[in-house]
Amino acid sequence: MDLRPVGQAILDGQPFSKLVGVEIARFEEGFCELVLEIEERHKQHNGFVHGGVTSTLADMALTFAGGSVLQDVLTLEWKINFLRPGIGERLVARGQVMSHGATQAVCRCDIFAVTAGEEKLVAAAQGTIAKRPERKG
Amino acid sequence: MDLRPVGQAILDGQPFSKLVGVEIARFEEGFCELVLEIEERHKQHNGFVHGGVTSTLADMALTFAGGSVLQDVLTLEWKINFLRPGIGERLVARGQVMSHGATQAVCRCDIFAVTAGEEKLVAAAQGTIAKRPERKG
Amino acid sequence: MDLRPVGQAILDGQPFSKLVGVEIARFEEGFCELVLEIEERHKQHNGFVHGGVTSTLADMALTFAGGSVLQDVLTLEWKINFLRPGIGERLVARGQVMSHGATQAVCRCDIFAVTAGEEKLVAAAQGTIAKRPERKG
Amino acid sequence: MDLRPVGQAILDGQPFSKLVGVEIARFEEGFCELVLEIEERHKQHNGFVHGGVTSTLADMALTFAGGSVLQDVLTLEWKINFLRPGIGERLVARGQVMSHGATQAVCRCDIFAVTAGEEKLVAAAQGTIAKRPERKG
Repeated sequence: MDLRPVGQAILDGQPFSKLVGVEIARFEEGFCELVLEIEERHKQHNGFVHGGVTSTLADMALTFAGGSVLQDVLTLEWKINFLRPGIGERLVARGQVMSHGATQAVCRCDIFAVTAGEEKLVAAAQGTIAKRPERKG
Repeated sequence: MDLRPVGQAILDGQPFSKLVGVEIARFEEGFCELVLEIEERHKQHNGFVHGGVTSTLADMALTFAGGSVLQDVLTLEWKINFLRPGIGERLVARGQVMSHGATQAVCRCDIFAVTAGEEKLVAAAQGTIAKRPERKG
Repeated sequence: MDLRPVGQAILDGQPFSKLVGVEIARFEEGFCELVLEIEERHKQHNGFVHGGVTSTLADMALTFAGGSVLQDVLTLEWKINFLRPGIGERLVARGQVMSHGATQAVCRCDIFAVTAGEEKLVAAAQGTIAKRPERKG
Repeated sequence: MDLRPVGQAILDGQPFSKLVGVEIARFEEGFCELVLEIEERHKQHNGFVHGGVTSTLADMALTFAGGSVLQDVLTLEWKINFLRPGIGERLVARGQVMSHGATQAVCRCDIFAVTAGEEKLVAAAQGTIAKRPERKG
């Protein structure tokens, strides 16, 4: 099932996602692909993409992947390894569910920098997404 | 030694830090405190601070802490646990070096949401910052 | 309240903890201290304590700390940074709860190598411990 | 190239690996597979494999994978997510290099419990392995 309309509605409601400029390219059960066109505002002092941008993509791709199987979710934790400087035309973050039960999903995310159609892995993340507890009363 | 002028110069050269609105409150050997006044643009669809904002602060506080002892640095990796929703007037991120050698520093960072002067821990991070290798030739 | 008798009973029921030789020195609400006397069987090929031993202590100290506030628990995830080679007479692992709700605790653990009474930090860990869900029916 | 003889020699020199009973099934450039036959001594008080055993396998599989491309290595850091209780006849840990340069490798490891030939993912890890610095003088 194509969940992109659901994902787009969530993105549209997130001021920070719009500030950063994150777009959703694919969203289906257990998988999510986010795209960011690299612009000057995403950079740090040396011209590379700021770690906060890459981290924001990781946070979102892990959370969307988990949300695709658990619906309304909270991000519990994740870790990220930075492999290469973020240089290129765009970043593509692919998040996927590795395993999930009724209340939690463990997801991985790979983030690539794309230049002239060639993808290079720039960061790898792994973390836990939880179903938001229902309110009582 | 007060390293704030050094830190401020780095922040001023980072378009993404300015886009997010991160300020440096304290910066000395082995320690860094960053502050962010919470505004609408920092939020996600439920009114809480977006995980990408908290992550950006963690990335920066860890990196600045490591940079205070290693100078020019790369952020290798870190993990973050989200403890409470980010709600309040501002976020304060405190990063400190736990241990370092000549080429790497392991740092921790605690992030607090502040409301009416009261701090609540909202996230905790830990990671590795490396001295940037010198270029040869 | 001194929870050491509770902790000792758990340790006594764990064949692997006994194989490794982990002892519990302190155990109270939100805090746990484990001790391991370093012997030949704990080492790797270069004479340092094996990373698996240090990891086992981290896993246990985080889990016991979380268990001190949540009772019957599952270890969800953690990360560890190795700071120095494990050399000395014993390892001491101190785990503490940073924040917890009714179902989860986020804990940190510092592991020290002790030689002639002097402690050196050899590893630092952080992770999530969850209350074990009650069985239905 | 089959690196198993190299890996076996390292294992044979590690008292703790022998105490735990880790065997090397495959070892080649960028990849490592470790196997552990589950016995009573590997368990915790509830009959599941102890988290320290799973962690030891993760530590070793990540380190061997990194070592396959960097030779003499140090384990800098890693994180692990526990997905299911460790129950079965044996554990199989597969570590692989995601990306590496001259001095560091970022690796992932999946750990499976095997029962009657069926594998179930019980844990997932990710971390950084570094080339050991050469001694001067």
